[in-house]
Amino acid sequence: MLRYFFILFFFQCYLFTQENNEIELKIRDFYNYSLTNGSSYNRLEYLSNDIGSRLSGSLGAERAVQWVKKELENLNLDEVWLEPVMVPKWVRGSFEYASIESSTGNSINVPVCALGGSISTPSKGIRAQVIEVKSFEELKNYGKNKVQGKIVFFNKSMDPKRINTFLAYRDLVNIRINAATEAIKYGAKAVVIRSLNLSNDDFPHTGSMSYGKTKLRERIPSLAISTNGANLLSSMVNLDPNLNFFIKQNCKNYPDVLSHNVIGEIKGHAYPKKIILIGAHLDSWDLGDGSHDNGAGVVQSLEVLSNFISLDYKPRHTIRVVLFMNEENGLRGAKKYLANSIKNNEDHLFALESDSGGFSPRGFSFDSSEIEFNKINKWSSYLKPFFTDNFFVGSVGADINFLKPLGTVLSSLSTDSQKYFQFHHSAKDVFKNVNRRELELGAAAMTSLIYLVDTFGL
Amino acid sequence: MLRYFFILFFFQCYLFTQENNEIELKIRDFYNYSLTNGSSYNRLEYLSNDIGSRLSGSLGAERAVQWVKKELENLNLDEVWLEPVMVPKWVRGSFEYASIESSTGNSINVPVCALGGSISTPSKGIRAQVIEVKSFEELKNYGKNKVQGKIVFFNKSMDPKRINTFLAYRDLVNIRINAATEAIKYGAKAVVIRSLNLSNDDFPHTGSMSYGKTKLRERIPSLAISTNGANLLSSMVNLDPNLNFFIKQNCKNYPDVLSHNVIGEIKGHAYPKKIILIGAHLDSWDLGDGSHDNGAGVVQSLEVLSNFISLDYKPRHTIRVVLFMNEENGLRGAKKYLANSIKNNEDHLFALESDSGGFSPRGFSFDSSEIEFNKINKWSSYLKPFFTDNFFVGSVGADINFLKPLGTVLSSLSTDSQKYFQFHHSAKDVFKNVNRRELELGAAAMTSLIYLVDTFGL
Repeated sequence: MLRYFFILFFFQCYLFTQENNEIELKIRDFYNYSLTNGSSYNRLEYLSNDIGSRLSGSLGAERAVQWVKKELENLNLDEVWLEPVMVPKWVRGSFEYASIESSTGNSINVPVCALGGSISTPSKGIRAQVIEVKSFEELKNYGKNKVQGKIVFFNKSMDPKRINTFLAYRDLVNIRINAATEAIKYGAKAVVIRSLNLSNDDFPHTGSMSYGKTKLRERIPSLAISTNGANLLSSMVNLDPNLNFFIKQNCKNYPDVLSHNVIGEIKGHAYPKKIILIGAHLDSWDLGDGSHDNGAGVVQSLEVLSNFISLDYKPRHTIRVVLFMNEENGLRGAKKYLANSIKNNEDHLFALESDSGGFSPRGFSFDSSEIEFNKINKWSSYLKPFFTDNFFVGSVGADINFLKPLGTVLSSLSTDSQKYFQFHHSAKDVFKNVNRRELELGAAAMTSLIYLVDTFGL
Repeated sequence: MLRYFFILFFFQCYLFTQENNEIELKIRDFYNYSLTNGSSYNRLEYLSNDIGSRLSGSLGAERAVQWVKKELENLNLDEVWLEPVMVPKWVRGSFEYASIESSTGNSINVPVCALGGSISTPSKGIRAQVIEVKSFEELKNYGKNKVQGKIVFFNKSMDPKRINTFLAYRDLVNIRINAATEAIKYGAKAVVIRSLNLSNDDFPHTGSMSYGKTKLRERIPSLAISTNGANLLSSMVNLDPNLNFFIKQNCKNYPDVLSHNVIGEIKGHAYPKKIILIGAHLDSWDLGDGSHDNGAGVVQSLEVLSNFISLDYKPRHTIRVVLFMNEENGLRGAKKYLANSIKNNEDHLFALESDSGGFSPRGFSFDSSEIEFNKINKWSSYLKPFFTDNFFVGSVGADINFLKPLGTVLSSLSTDSQKYFQFHHSAKDVFKNVNRRELELGAAAMTSLIYLVDTFGL
């Protein structure tokens, strides 16, 4: 009896090892494909250079929608469709500038940009004294007496001591979003925010801001100033508290316009109703071409499908790629996708987003139950040879985050974040700043994780 | 009795936790210092831009020796000295160029550079037909009949499927070093090597080559061609096997000259005779300014001392920084250092080298006994918050490798290697291609590891 037991035991061990080997070989194949025959870099080149920036509601965004739809159709998927969604339309306009005007008559231009959603200045611009603060608390302490009629300058630096730079960003993004609303309470004429950038340079970084419930006629212009500009303004205000800051911009909010999420899928042969989603956002800010944010995620998501198709891998579950519209200033695409998913009673098993730039991948974050994470975490060893085995419980991309109430296991590609905030939302986020191999390694890692979910289930 | 036992147990647990917390706080301090007040980036700026390239025997190398000595002296160490060593002197000369001359009279220039140690061409250059091979095996199969009088073109690409790019380099470096010696056997007139670069671009990558025991009068010129140039040459030879390749260079070998390793140390207060060494090589190739290879390692090594001194950390063991001369084309500095160590009967407990570029650090490789590695590996958790906890058994830097026979535990900083071979040994290895935060994180990781070795011993 014991003898049969041992034979059975060793046979099972043999099968287990066989299966393990097969999985390892398959993952190696996915990597080899992405690193030698992949399309992610060429696709990014087209999206970044031929289409360029694609802010929601812009012509660039519509060109991107049509291009991605065509790319998905060229893959001969089982289904490709556009999901209509109304998106905000904000246009930067033709000029935005600022200068520091000392009380003795000198004037120095500094690089600024409008924050997304901001109103324009009056056509003659705004000239006012500056009050520098680092927090809403400090603003409150100054109070209406000291703030009234001035331009509030939020000059809080990102913390270089934060090793995960996304956390340094998270610390301060609230200032960018709500500075105007807060400053309005104390009668400020405008707000200028230090760019969320860990380097000192001359590039202002845009991003979304909100007026909350502030009435239209009470709203004030909201701008970002480059980090070098912020350092200069700060030291000059310190020397000459009576200097004027002059700002002028003609950005504008328009009524919502129609745009689309772009969706394509391969039907699963075993579980066609169970969806594994791979997503990224198709819109970008308008100062660069959005190569890292989030062109990289778009082409990596497409690459998962290209990889499966090229290697003739037939998924058991339905593999769906969703390129979300309007992550940057409204998340309307993600909300619409969720609403339709609920309406259609869809079953999302797993959702993976890539929205941390096309940098060297290090692993994946997961938002799931502990049991699910413990199961998934065991697969990390398959990605150890690729230095992408850091699986951890953490926050995930903004678009897929909406699927949380559906009980979907959520994940995001985690990259080396050290350089991201040099580029993020600025004119430096362009194609040449994405490294081909790093982009491809991210795509291969995503393909591998999706393959593991499809193979083992959840 | 049991009660006392428990009290003792919990007291020990308390002490253990206290110690752990102290270590964590100390490491956090080292990081905070390097990321906010460190000198590594400013020092690299000086070494790269004010001094520039520093090939052994060059004026640049001597300026670097004097500068590093001064930097060490400014730190008020217990001792700073120069260790004399005779080094090879090879000079690139004033020109190096090549062109593909089709049999129909067209001519296209392609970017080439002499390999370090190569002889010049005759003053009128060399014009010959090309035979393309991928390996010494293939060359041998062609034999003397087909190779005689021709220029041998080694066109083997680095393997993009290798995830660790250092392994892709290791696969092929033997071709660069020994191509001339092999080709001479079959009567070749010169050798041209495809640059060891994972990207396609127009920059040739130099590096050392050797003539082995080949007699002076039999030696042939040895060059590298850019990857784009190699692709062009290959496709043209394929279309027109009778085309000529024309090469001309006037590099030259000179007799050995005197140079120096630069050494500085803080004496340990508990174990002054036990040395913990931190090293990097001061020399560089001459096409760029050697910012990654190995300016980064030099300034990171200095930063460990700056960090200790600034935070008033008094090491128990002697902490010695060694900036080795001539790693690139002879390793004479490392050999001399070893010889003097043996002569002086020195006790090297541990040696750490940084020579993998100033990229985002991922961990450390170790060459040690299993027992020692298992002990060290437990410390990796201290570096987990900094994403630098990949401790593994592997190869270490070429300079400290000489200390192996002394029983020293050896270690090297391991970085994200994806981009390294775009820059390595080429004109692209310049200051602007080093990222400040990544450099600083490497310096902080090194400081932390040295601190752990000093605290726990081995």
